[in-house]
This record gives sequence, C-alpha cells and structure tokens, in this order.
Amino acid sequence: MSELIIWTYDWVPDGPRGFVRDLRLRWACEEAELPYTVQTVQFDDRQTNHLERQPFGQVPFLSDGELQLFESGAGLLHLARKSDKLMPRDRVGEAHTVQWTISALNSIEMVTVPWWFLKLSGNADNDLAGWMGMRLQQLENLLSEREWLVADRFTAADLLMADVLRVPDLRAFGNRPATEAYVTRATSRPAFKKAYADQMAHFQAADEQRA
Amino acid sequence: MSELIIWTYDWVPDGPRGFVRDLRLRWACEEAELPYTVQTVQFDDRQTNHLERQPFGQVPFLSDGELQLFESGAGLLHLARKSDKLMPRDRVGEAHTVQWTISALNSIEMVTVPWWFLKLSGNADNDLAGWMGMRLQQLENLLSEREWLVADRFTAADLLMADVLRVPDLRAFGNRPATEAYVTRATSRPAFKKAYADQMAHFQAADEQRA
Repeated sequence: MSELIIWTYDWVPDGPRGFVRDLRLRWACEEAELPYTVQTVQFDDRQTNHLERQPFGQVPFLSDGELQLFESGAGLLHLARKSDKLMPRDRVGEAHTVQWTISALNSIEMVTVPWWFLKLSGNADNDLAGWMGMRLQQLENLLSEREWLVADRFTAADLLMADVLRVPDLRAFGNRPATEAYVTRATSRPAFKKAYADQMAHFQAADEQRA
Repeated sequence: MSELIIWTYDWVPDGPRGFVRDLRLRWACEEAELPYTVQTVQFDDRQTNHLERQPFGQVPFLSDGELQLFESGAGLLHLARKSDKLMPRDRVGEAHTVQWTISALNSIEMVTVPWWFLKLSGNADNDLAGWMGMRLQQLENLLSEREWLVADRFTAADLLMADVLRVPDLRAFGNRPATEAYVTRATSRPAFKKAYADQMAHFQAADEQRA
C-alpha cells in the first residue's frame, strides 16, 4: 500500500482550529484504520506558496504515493474507495454515498459557507439567511426520518455532512432537533474525537515552536 | 444496458432557460453517445411534489434502471463511469476528474452562485465579490496554462466547470481572457449545442402546450 500523507498548514490562528478541513481526511483515515502521516505547508504566504499543489492556496490536499489530490471532498471519496467502512461496496450504496457527499458540498455548504462568510464580515442578517433556513429545514425533515444518510449506516457522506453542520453559528441558527442529534451522533464517534484532538494538538505544538 | 432517464421540470420561466441543470446531464450523454430520455416533474409546487426523489425540490435527477440519483455533480460522475469520453480510465486521470468536478462545485460555484443570488436580490456589489474575484483570478491563471483541466483532454470536469462559468453575469465580471476562451471552447462542442438546443426546445414546447 502506498503512503498516505495529509497536508495541512503548519499553524493557524485560534479561530479556525478544530475546523481546518484536514480534519475531514484525518477523520476518514481514523474510521477506516488507514495509516497516514501529516505534513505541512506554511500558513504565511499560503496564497502563493503551494499553488502547484492547490491552485486556490487552500488545504488540505492528499498524497497517495505518486497521486496528489486537492479538494477535501475528492480526498474523502478517494479514501472511501479504499474501505467499506466509509462506503458500501454495492452499486447503489456507492452511488448514494457519492450523491450525499456532493449534496453536503453543493446543496448545503454552498449556502452555509457564504452565509458564514457574510456573518463574519459583520452582516449576520444577510440575504442568504432565508435560502439557508429553507435548505436546513429540508435536511431536518429528512434527518428526522433516518439515522444516517445512506444505507442505514455511517458513511463518508455522513462524515462530510456532519462536518459541514457542526459549525457553532449554524447549530445556533434556528431549532432543528434531528439535525442536532445527527451532529452529536457523528461527532461522538471515536474516530472524530481522535481526529479533532490530533488537529488541536498539531496547532498547539506549532504555538510552542513559535514561542 | 439499463435505461437512462434525465428528469427535469415540465416548464420554467424564460430566465433560467438554457441554464437548468438537466443540461449538464444531457450534455454528458451527448458527449458519450449514451441513449437517454427526458421526463418531467411539475415546476408548480416543485418545493413539495418530488421530495422523495430530490429532498431539496430541485432538478435534475437521474434514473438508471433501479438506481435513482440526485445532484447534477453526482449524476455527472455516474455517467462518467460509463464512458472514457467523459473520464480517463487510469487511476490518476479518474481521481483528477473527480477532483476538478468537485472543485467546480465547491471552490467556484460555492462562491459564484451565492454571489449571483445576492446580485439577483438587487445587491450586485455584495461582500462576496472580492472573494469571487480572487477565486476566478486563480482559475484564470491556471487556464492560461492549459487547454483542459485534466490530462490534456476534455473531461466531465470541464463540462461542469464550463457550465458553472458560462453564466453571462460571471463572464461580464472582470476580464479573464483565458477563462473566456475556455468557456467558448467548451460550449462550441457539438454535444453542448445539441443539449442546449434540446433544453430550449423542451421548454418552448411546454409554452405551446400551456397557450
């Protein structure tokens, strides 16, 4: 098996800690018991220092031997192909895992991240709030009828959807008990806790090196 | 081979014609010469009339025999698995097609669609414009160095990226000659032209039925 490397920043400010998206790939590797190491690019000058590997200057990206992949969703689907702990092996289960992974990115995060961006810019009651409220309610309706998105079991799609939904500002927006229970269910998994603790420790160690 | 059905609305107003996302799946089928038919759900009451097949009340969704899939990106990747005209068959080419497909959805459309939404709400100079300008410039830099996103050939990733970028308001935002040439190159393909003409004819026929 080729060596998996998850690339993230060497350091980030306190705000994004626990939410840098390398966590998605760490979490997936922990769920699937895939061995991996973590390597870094500099947070300073991030807009230019690794464009040949991530053309938008972001993290994470993934190395799997010679293969290099950016986009956390693409890395996640790549890892999901390696383990049935992340994706069922039957045709329908696999297609629906891809469907809900993309839905998390393009039906939910496409509204929640820009809403959050505007909120952080000082515009909490922005014009995206109505659209976002509708989408989150549609998802709430669905999550009130099922425990996981695909095939009555945890998959990579839940990993991504729960990661999108666990942002505190989103959890505080409206009242969606089924969604809240879903986020709690997903983030109570030992693999999430390990990935979260490891990311926090990674940036904590960077503070100590900087001090 | 099981029967492919692309589901769209029975009718839409003039504004979105030519941009309803069934076009992405039509275009893919035309590129790959996959036979398909088109069926419809009602545009009226779309928020509730097909939630069991598309939980956000949108189109398109795809039927492939017993399999039902929503999210245009997921439908596109499903079709891409059927034909090397949409995705190379080698490990790296396939992974990079998935990567750029997700990048179109989550790095570009995640900014452009909310920007457009705010613009249509009467807020053209909104707070997302700076973020979008940065992303589009990063993409422009990359497209000035390559003709297609993956493996020096047209793939499903180009189909999706070009569909995201061909929105007139985006083409009018800033000056990005490599991006403009890329969109022109993609939308000059006979498969795009056929898909576009078919969508326009579909809604035109609906007008005549309504009249």
